[in-house]
Amino acid sequence: MNAIDLILAKRDGGRLTDEQIDWFIRSYTDGTVGDEQAAALLMAILFRGLDPDELARWTAQMIATGTRADLSSLSKPTVDKHSTGGVGDKISLILCPLIAACGAAVPQTAGRGLGHTGGTLDKMETIPGWRSTLSPDEVLRVLTTSGAVINAAGPDLAPADRKLYALRDVTGTVESIPLIASSIMSKKIAEGTSALVLDVKVGTGAFMKDEGRAHELAETMVGLGAAHGVRTTALLTQMDVPLGRTAGNALEVVEAIEVLAGGGPRDVVELTLALAREMLELVGLTDVDPGDVLARGGAMDAWRALVRAQGGDPTALLPRAAEIEIVPAPATGTLSRLDAMAVGVAAWRLGAGRARKEDAVSPIAGVAWRATVGDQVVEGEPLLELHLDDPTKLDGALEALDGAIEVSPTPVSPPPLVLGHVT
Amino acid sequence: MNAIDLILAKRDGGRLTDEQIDWFIRSYTDGTVGDEQAAALLMAILFRGLDPDELARWTAQMIATGTRADLSSLSKPTVDKHSTGGVGDKISLILCPLIAACGAAVPQTAGRGLGHTGGTLDKMETIPGWRSTLSPDEVLRVLTTSGAVINAAGPDLAPADRKLYALRDVTGTVESIPLIASSIMSKKIAEGTSALVLDVKVGTGAFMKDEGRAHELAETMVGLGAAHGVRTTALLTQMDVPLGRTAGNALEVVEAIEVLAGGGPRDVVELTLALAREMLELVGLTDVDPGDVLARGGAMDAWRALVRAQGGDPTALLPRAAEIEIVPAPATGTLSRLDAMAVGVAAWRLGAGRARKEDAVSPIAGVAWRATVGDQVVEGEPLLELHLDDPTKLDGALEALDGAIEVSPTPVSPPPLVLGHVT
Repeated sequence: MNAIDLILAKRDGGRLTDEQIDWFIRSYTDGTVGDEQAAALLMAILFRGLDPDELARWTAQMIATGTRADLSSLSKPTVDKHSTGGVGDKISLILCPLIAACGAAVPQTAGRGLGHTGGTLDKMETIPGWRSTLSPDEVLRVLTTSGAVINAAGPDLAPADRKLYALRDVTGTVESIPLIASSIMSKKIAEGTSALVLDVKVGTGAFMKDEGRAHELAETMVGLGAAHGVRTTALLTQMDVPLGRTAGNALEVVEAIEVLAGGGPRDVVELTLALAREMLELVGLTDVDPGDVLARGGAMDAWRALVRAQGGDPTALLPRAAEIEIVPAPATGTLSRLDAMAVGVAAWRLGAGRARKEDAVSPIAGVAWRATVGDQVVEGEPLLELHLDDPTKLDGALEALDGAIEVSPTPVSPPPLVLGHVT
Repeated sequence: MNAIDLILAKRDGGRLTDEQIDWFIRSYTDGTVGDEQAAALLMAILFRGLDPDELARWTAQMIATGTRADLSSLSKPTVDKHSTGGVGDKISLILCPLIAACGAAVPQTAGRGLGHTGGTLDKMETIPGWRSTLSPDEVLRVLTTSGAVINAAGPDLAPADRKLYALRDVTGTVESIPLIASSIMSKKIAEGTSALVLDVKVGTGAFMKDEGRAHELAETMVGLGAAHGVRTTALLTQMDVPLGRTAGNALEVVEAIEVLAGGGPRDVVELTLALAREMLELVGLTDVDPGDVLARGGAMDAWRALVRAQGGDPTALLPRAAEIEIVPAPATGTLSRLDAMAVGVAAWRLGAGRARKEDAVSPIAGVAWRATVGDQVVEGEPLLELHLDDPTKLDGALEALDGAIEVSPTPVSPPPLVLGHVT
């Protein structure tokens, strides 16, 4: 077997055989094939694609470089959710305990933020004592105790992905739909869940700006799940406007707790319940109403159990910014635009996000907004709060927000949250 | 400046700026940019191309990683020829001394064979004592003495090309027309010639199988020459049938000497004179008839001077195979097919060529054919001679020749040699 043969076949529009795919993933992961040949192959795949059979094999082999977890000893059905990443997206923090409270087990492998998008682990780690590096045995124990776990990807979870992702990141090959799909799905399949709901974000603040490509990604991932025996559906949801009222690590935990307590922003509640219904339907728990469970405090109990099971103190005070800069509304009327990308970049620049995987993030930095699209605002009244950890970062954040806000003299409806459904 | 920006721009069909091109060629040559990012960029270029301005800049910067030779102290006009590589192509061995005898200077930088195609240096090195690693001062001295030089690319001749070529070789990015053109032309421009004739081969035994792509390559290279002040034209010539009657290192030197002595195969003489007329026209020596010069022995005198000036003994006997295997004609009639690729691969497998740059070649191994397409053959009479250096290699060569020969009961014309002309 020879890397050049694979590169030429794909470059010229041909198919890779099962043997070629197995050999490449194995040989690249163990270092037999070098970065330069892998980079050329990834770029050829970006131009030519992988067909569904090639992609299923590619993903299977990525999983086979590690171990697919076996959760069959659990007494409950397993179901997970994955978001492709947005601004203010704290849904997992609410959804994992909510689903646990509804009677399914959620074995969530979560990630860290990169660029303008936040990451569930960064948010959870603002809770004193909470830790995300559980062994497979600990994952099973926490799932048994609390019904949900939020864990970082361990060394055995599709290790090929770590190497491929790092290479894609420096070679301009991140944006290939089959490569995105295999990266996400290899980890989700390997974590051992039996069912999965994908939240594919579309809009300025999302990885996919274009609904057509988002739909293609959703269909590709749903197909990959099915090919590996994981019942998978996807919602396409809007990310032109950031979710809820906050973007920042501790800020979003506070907002998630408000929702768990029965309050919180309307859009966060609505999207959480839409995803919860999808998840429950996939595992046959259709007689449970997640709205009822949330209202009756069941999700809050499950949240406390989850936090405690992973070493955290659910009663601890979360860190807060000592200094907050206010941005007033520029006019009186209806807020017609609050750009998700601008808010995400502002939060990132304030310190909530990272430019490189190795960077640290600030727990307290971030952006909160007192109104969202469709709400009334009054000129000169506070609209945005910039929560500062390092005041020298304020100017960069203000610059990112330039042009991000518009106020209309006539009424404006908030955008629909769910744009599509792929099963 | 950042390699990812270049990769994304080219991947998405955009242009690279002059600054980006200069930075990339410089940074890749000095090792600041790694092989994985360069591989991704080369693959993106293979898919998206480089426009004429990008390509001229890319080539200029490749040259600028070394030194462009200054031959202005010579009293004669300089002109060179480059062939894209074929089977049995010993034209340079005749053409360099012939043009010298016609009154121009030929500062030829030549290469080694790779795969099924032979290389001028490998052929010349079968002459006892001859050497090809002349310093720039020695090149000037030999040009002054003998009017022609055949030299290997030195460390200062477009060093970026050495690195880029090695990377293209392992990343499936050899077949990009702008990358081929910049590789060839960077070295030809840097050698200091004022004019250049390209022999772009088309056919089974050529790098370009397709006349359309060969034409595109010829036009690209002619344009690049013009952009750098080198008057450049190209002939497209056929390579379905191998040139002359031999493919092998010493075998081809013997054949070249036959032509220099006024004999030799018709096609070799015809192509040599066609290229000679092109070269002489480019430097304004239109009152010299190269056919006359060849017939009167002037080229043979120049050949002896060239060989001697580079340390070789033009009177030495060349090495010959002790063992020759004969392949008889399969039928009586007109030879209608003698496949150039098959003959080239057979010669390669016998030891005349190399699979990797580092391999040694046999001086004596090769293939000779006693008839070419259009000639009469008689069933059972000797048609091919396989010159053996290592008899264990015979079977592989015979296998390569399977299906390479056809005999027709009706007359067949030899194919036209020159297929097109690009100025």
